[in-house]
Amino acid sequence: MTRQITKDTILCMSLASRPGNFGTRFHNFLYEALDLDYLYKAFTTDNLAAAIAGVRALRVRGCAISMPFKEDVIALVDEMMPSAAQIQSVNTIVNDNGYLKAYNTDYLAIETLLKDYQVSNQLTFALQGSGGMAKAVAGALHHLGFRQGVIVARNEQAGRKLAQLYDYQWAASADDCAADLLVNATPLGMTGADAQVLAFSEARVDSAQVIFDVVASPSKTPLIELAKQRNKTIITGSEVFALQAVEQFALYTGVRPELNLFEQAARYARAAQ
Amino acid sequence: MTRQITKDTILCMSLASRPGNFGTRFHNFLYEALDLDYLYKAFTTDNLAAAIAGVRALRVRGCAISMPFKEDVIALVDEMMPSAAQIQSVNTIVNDNGYLKAYNTDYLAIETLLKDYQVSNQLTFALQGSGGMAKAVAGALHHLGFRQGVIVARNEQAGRKLAQLYDYQWAASADDCAADLLVNATPLGMTGADAQVLAFSEARVDSAQVIFDVVASPSKTPLIELAKQRNKTIITGSEVFALQAVEQFALYTGVRPELNLFEQAARYARAAQ
Repeated sequence: MTRQITKDTILCMSLASRPGNFGTRFHNFLYEALDLDYLYKAFTTDNLAAAIAGVRALRVRGCAISMPFKEDVIALVDEMMPSAAQIQSVNTIVNDNGYLKAYNTDYLAIETLLKDYQVSNQLTFALQGSGGMAKAVAGALHHLGFRQGVIVARNEQAGRKLAQLYDYQWAASADDCAADLLVNATPLGMTGADAQVLAFSEARVDSAQVIFDVVASPSKTPLIELAKQRNKTIITGSEVFALQAVEQFALYTGVRPELNLFEQAARYARAAQ
Repeated sequence: MTRQITKDTILCMSLASRPGNFGTRFHNFLYEALDLDYLYKAFTTDNLAAAIAGVRALRVRGCAISMPFKEDVIALVDEMMPSAAQIQSVNTIVNDNGYLKAYNTDYLAIETLLKDYQVSNQLTFALQGSGGMAKAVAGALHHLGFRQGVIVARNEQAGRKLAQLYDYQWAASADDCAADLLVNATPLGMTGADAQVLAFSEARVDSAQVIFDVVASPSKTPLIELAKQRNKTIITGSEVFALQAVEQFALYTGVRPELNLFEQAARYARAAQ
């Protein structure tokens, strides 16, 4: 940071049970590159209500909300904006002079990508997962008019609950779920033990048109690699992440960083993970 | 700031109705010079209780308390340390894992200076003022065993209240208050309209041994200049300020900066006032 912190420097922050360094490095990098008098820092808390009271009272401009606070924070904000209301999950709070507006930029990013790639809502879909990202995908699909789909989740209770919310089907396994659009919203194919796991079978990929791997980071999962080989339309988790982060940054600062600068910031932030 | 902010960077802050830049520049200068992973920023608030709840919940390490919050904050802390309890006024909060301890480093500095200059408690004193600093001085004098003194205050109600607290006298004017120790805790002699005003008359200074100008900043007030000419023992407001700031810094970080570095930081901080 070459810019000096003053009494007028605007604070943005995040709240997570186990904060990482990505957000702090990412936002501060962009503040400096864009010469914005902002400051970003990750926090944790054992008292969410008091932490949000502090955000409000100290005029912290923006607050990213991570696990496990995304639903509990709903009761503490002043207004649920459509992106958060749609899926009853908050990942971004914007503080306008003590008035807290809640957004879900994951939802916004997913909906934007489905529109940008012109994925027709006449397609059938199979969505794997029942966590926060799966909720964001299901909400976006429903909002965009997709009516024929199945939620694939080993957790039957969570899977059925999400399916019923939007009048979709539920299945325990993807094996019998042929669909035009395949969406993975599980850690399958990510780093660690699941790195080599193909989220959908070759047969499913072959019969699909669009493959969307939402949570993957890095984005080169076995599913995406296979879909590339088969010349499918591909949407990656990196795109979701980038869009939601830019959206969040723009909500806090009013400035939308260009893709080039954004990627530089993301590389810089990842370097010290 | 050359040091990068991370999730582990420790936040210290201040709360005032009209925050200045001194503290932010002063502390951040020292953090950088001493390579401490800390960050300082001044805040204001219209909800003191929520702000302090936030300090606690977000594990903000230290919080300086300025006007008009020094008394209202008493109800919001977990423990009043002797320096704050003695005068029922808080200017420093230290957060030990969610447990808030309140101090008054002005009081600590004043008491330390009176001891360091070996001002005998057998001296009579005249203390001018009835505000926060006058309270700190009266409390320190009483705690050190001074028993014969007069509080000089044009505001009779405030003056009498402070005097009665420690069984001292009250007077509306210093003209008849001959005393060995003269203490000015008013803005008389400071910058602005009062810059040329002598807080005590020449006759009072002549008959005194020790002259203590508490709130003066800069410290070369007409009272101090006169006391120098007459070879009196002199204690200045700069010394109070320096000591209280070092004390506050040490409470937050465990590090006590050397005088030389401290003065560099103070000069730097004043440069942009």
